[in-house]
Amino acid sequence: MHELKVLFQPSGRRVFVLPGTRLLEAAERAGIILQTPCGGKGTCGKCRVQIAGADVLACQYVVEHDLVVDVPDESLFIGGQQILVTDAGRAVGVVDPPVRVVPFALPAPIQGDDISDFSRLRKAIDPALHCRLEVLQRLPFHLRAWGWRGRAVVTESRLLGVLAAEGEAPVFGVAVDLGTTTVVGTLINLVTGAERAVASRMNGQIQAGDDVISRIQCVREDQHAIGRLQASIVQTLQEIVDDLVAQAGVGREAVYEIALAGNATMQQLLLGVDCSALGEVPFVQAFSDAVTCPALTIGLEVNPGAALYVFPQIGGFVGGDTVAGIVATQLDQQSGPVLFVDIGTNGEIVLAHQGKLYTTSTAAGPAFEGARIKQGMRAVPGAIEKVLIGDDVTLNVIGDAAPAGLCGTALIDAVAELLRAGVLDETGRFREPDELPETVAPALRQRLQPDGDDWCFVLAEADQAARREAVCLWQRDVRELQLASGAIRAGVAILLARAGLAPEDLDAVLLAGAFGNYIRRHQARRIGLLPAMPEERIHFVGNAASLGAKMVLLSQAERRKADALLQHTEHVDLSLDPEFQFEFGMAMMFPGPEADGDFSGGLEG
Amino acid sequence: MHELKVLFQPSGRRVFVLPGTRLLEAAERAGIILQTPCGGKGTCGKCRVQIAGADVLACQYVVEHDLVVDVPDESLFIGGQQILVTDAGRAVGVVDPPVRVVPFALPAPIQGDDISDFSRLRKAIDPALHCRLEVLQRLPFHLRAWGWRGRAVVTESRLLGVLAAEGEAPVFGVAVDLGTTTVVGTLINLVTGAERAVASRMNGQIQAGDDVISRIQCVREDQHAIGRLQASIVQTLQEIVDDLVAQAGVGREAVYEIALAGNATMQQLLLGVDCSALGEVPFVQAFSDAVTCPALTIGLEVNPGAALYVFPQIGGFVGGDTVAGIVATQLDQQSGPVLFVDIGTNGEIVLAHQGKLYTTSTAAGPAFEGARIKQGMRAVPGAIEKVLIGDDVTLNVIGDAAPAGLCGTALIDAVAELLRAGVLDETGRFREPDELPETVAPALRQRLQPDGDDWCFVLAEADQAARREAVCLWQRDVRELQLASGAIRAGVAILLARAGLAPEDLDAVLLAGAFGNYIRRHQARRIGLLPAMPEERIHFVGNAASLGAKMVLLSQAERRKADALLQHTEHVDLSLDPEFQFEFGMAMMFPGPEADGDFSGGLEG
Repeated sequence: MHELKVLFQPSGRRVFVLPGTRLLEAAERAGIILQTPCGGKGTCGKCRVQIAGADVLACQYVVEHDLVVDVPDESLFIGGQQILVTDAGRAVGVVDPPVRVVPFALPAPIQGDDISDFSRLRKAIDPALHCRLEVLQRLPFHLRAWGWRGRAVVTESRLLGVLAAEGEAPVFGVAVDLGTTTVVGTLINLVTGAERAVASRMNGQIQAGDDVISRIQCVREDQHAIGRLQASIVQTLQEIVDDLVAQAGVGREAVYEIALAGNATMQQLLLGVDCSALGEVPFVQAFSDAVTCPALTIGLEVNPGAALYVFPQIGGFVGGDTVAGIVATQLDQQSGPVLFVDIGTNGEIVLAHQGKLYTTSTAAGPAFEGARIKQGMRAVPGAIEKVLIGDDVTLNVIGDAAPAGLCGTALIDAVAELLRAGVLDETGRFREPDELPETVAPALRQRLQPDGDDWCFVLAEADQAARREAVCLWQRDVRELQLASGAIRAGVAILLARAGLAPEDLDAVLLAGAFGNYIRRHQARRIGLLPAMPEERIHFVGNAASLGAKMVLLSQAERRKADALLQHTEHVDLSLDPEFQFEFGMAMMFPGPEADGDFSGGLEG
Repeated sequence: MHELKVLFQPSGRRVFVLPGTRLLEAAERAGIILQTPCGGKGTCGKCRVQIAGADVLACQYVVEHDLVVDVPDESLFIGGQQILVTDAGRAVGVVDPPVRVVPFALPAPIQGDDISDFSRLRKAIDPALHCRLEVLQRLPFHLRAWGWRGRAVVTESRLLGVLAAEGEAPVFGVAVDLGTTTVVGTLINLVTGAERAVASRMNGQIQAGDDVISRIQCVREDQHAIGRLQASIVQTLQEIVDDLVAQAGVGREAVYEIALAGNATMQQLLLGVDCSALGEVPFVQAFSDAVTCPALTIGLEVNPGAALYVFPQIGGFVGGDTVAGIVATQLDQQSGPVLFVDIGTNGEIVLAHQGKLYTTSTAAGPAFEGARIKQGMRAVPGAIEKVLIGDDVTLNVIGDAAPAGLCGTALIDAVAELLRAGVLDETGRFREPDELPETVAPALRQRLQPDGDDWCFVLAEADQAARREAVCLWQRDVRELQLASGAIRAGVAILLARAGLAPEDLDAVLLAGAFGNYIRRHQARRIGLLPAMPEERIHFVGNAASLGAKMVLLSQAERRKADALLQHTEHVDLSLDPEFQFEFGMAMMFPGPEADGDFSGGLEG
């Protein structure tokens, strides 16, 4: 199917969606969460946007063509205002630009006025001006070469560098989402707030294992591995920076700051901090507060005066990416109770209620990322990414290739659809052929095949599959999904109980992370991954970690908020909660058919 | 002549002096300035010290044997108290030890108490505890390896490192006197204040020229020279550090801080800061305030969390060594007017009066260091270091070798003695043989030899000299000395005039610097290098820069004072003073015979 481009203004964010996608969802995938107090039923009129000058309701509008959509501030739910702007144009909502470019023209020193160069600059710009040694080193040369005129790049009272009086004044920061698998960097103009370029790379540590546990294990076996793993990820970051500045046509020295969010293991390895303790109970982090250090401390070559900001960490496996997500979604400022779920290798969960944040993490992820699934794979060409089951099976394969396996969304789809069809029972067991409801179509019955004492369900026959090997959903795959999904649901249940809330009390559930962005809500609800609550309150917030990193680059206030968050955040250790085992056991069971709800899944992309 | 060892307690300082040296002067050479309100006449009794339990007056006692001298606090003039103590024993006057070693025993993390390692340490030690990344990196490893017990090395609220609970706890700092020619480092125990080792090296930059001007010229010709010159001096420093820690039997990681004082050119080159502007009028420094940066920023390998402190600079060629000298002599706290003179390649002069400091520098030094003197040389074996003239010439040669040339003290001696004998007139001209006073002995007359239109004076005949080449004082040498001496005397005169003072108003003149330590006061006064004032008010304060560096290592208060000094310091540009040319011209003339005073020079070493 041909994907359609939807461009949102004034943020300049673009997404590609399948025809038939509701505009409300397209906006969410772009990280733009609209007001929907009526639950997307088209009755409250709060999600009003403009297309070609005409008002439409995003919850009712279905995307059938490429679109340009104007989003008025008053329709926004998350963010209140958009902090990022397009390079092309209007600066919107950059309320606290941290970096100023201040032109200066100094009197040349003469006898009788021979104060030091730095004192001379300070006198002209800010009596509290200070800088790092690297900025000072070439200052005398530049001031004289430029005839005592130029531009000072200043944040608060810190001199980041000097530029010639004329010409471009590129002052960029890089926001980094440091994932275990993928690293994404965004080049941000620190003066205008504009996004200038995006680049991503595989995390160079991947050779030491796919997940954080294998990287931690490396370090536990050999302390010297810290240095090697640090070097790998620094090289990845350097490649991203070099890609970004090449795209923008500037040099490395145009990067004046880097803000980075990652999970605790990634952040500690990037900083060269021992992470062995994350590999044993009770999973202790090395530090909690944000770390700020010269970028060159870790060997990153950008502007010599550039600082690296690494997000605070909350505890256990709740790291900087979650803090960044909280900043991005302004979770601490939400009036009603809001749940934030970031599904990656771990599932991090945050519940915001009455000014307090409850957080926890669960070992949720591997199943959703294809690990531990017999024919699981990442969302790359050849992966089944969508499964629809009616009289027979309809598949959507990434890259229109022959199916080679299934990725996380397809796993959820397949289980949800088979539950709905009655091929799986509520305990997650494949029904024997003679137990199948009469409504199960013959084509489906034929796909149920014996596998030792168990059964499996053939999604793609061998003659249609890559490598002539049938792609199946196996009984063990269903169990893995139950474990992963059950862990998240139990975690959510514990946090809600801790705050004295029921799922229906939640104003909103925010789904973050690359994977979260692709989950189909009705399927997620069918398998019990998400609480039983009106589906319209479930929002996709995209790469919240990346957005949070951009925000602290552009706003000192947001940075102070990130640093202060820890004080009203409680890290909940699920394994200590007496209810967890019970909740987990309960959550292993799939919900009953009522979880299907009344929402037509067919409209989702 | 055999030199005698004099050990002063409780400071543990040692000096070697010639027999016949007054104990007062030996003390001064050790940097211990005693009270002498009576001018060293033995009438006031304030310079009382103990030798073998018996009270003696230092001004009257003549050193004839090796000695151990106990100095009571109440006899001290400079310092009021001694901040440094011997390694062996008593801590005296370390009033503000900056580094604490705090034992800790932490509860091991368990489920339910899983705060981060750093938060756990902070909870036990100091709620404001913070550290640099390098200290954090191995913290998790150490805490676990040591079973959660250990010792924290803390200064103010900064964690410098952690040590095991048992064993030595070596916490050292290095005080560095970064000279253009020689670099001296002293290893200081930061907890007890004890000096543990001393090491010195030739400045590795020497290949780029003997004096600061040639090094500045290198940089003016090629900006890349900054990096090369920086690498040279960092290598010198590293050798000194390695020597020091080897002497103390510890590793590089035992060095937690480095405090360094040097002239402006040396400090800027060490930091990799462009110093080109110090090579042209109006001689502008790059920075004024103290620079603190991680030691590894300049590539120095010590404790990875160690900081490098580089002294503030005042202006022109008045650099960090002068600020360190002010700190060492507590010049700003002297009640009466005090003059500080540091004679090196440049002569730096500071006048303290009524809470204000007047500073200037003059291009004084090369003559005193043997440069521009026809047969000048450094104070190394073979150099004539002392000249006495009676009926004939008596020489003292360093290392009892055949004389090869003369060093600065011999130059001053020779000129002073020849003035006294009447061989030189007060304009500095050699008298023709027929103009010589009748009192000039025949042996001296024979030594006066024609040299073109001028005359020269033979100090050592060819057959007694190294390389069979006579060592002479040439007319041009006398002119060079007049220039150097005149510059200092004119500088002193200008500062005194600026403060409305006459030389006789001065309570004291403090002579600093390695060379200053060896000048014979009566000779210096005879040639007019020092103001016409009672000789007893002239004190040697030794290597004041080095002492100042030690003091800021041991005292945060002294460091704050160093940083604050600039606010009440006026840098006087001599070339702008309308009086300077007149004063300089006047100072070129030697003083009349009354400058001989009444002090018997024979007692001086």
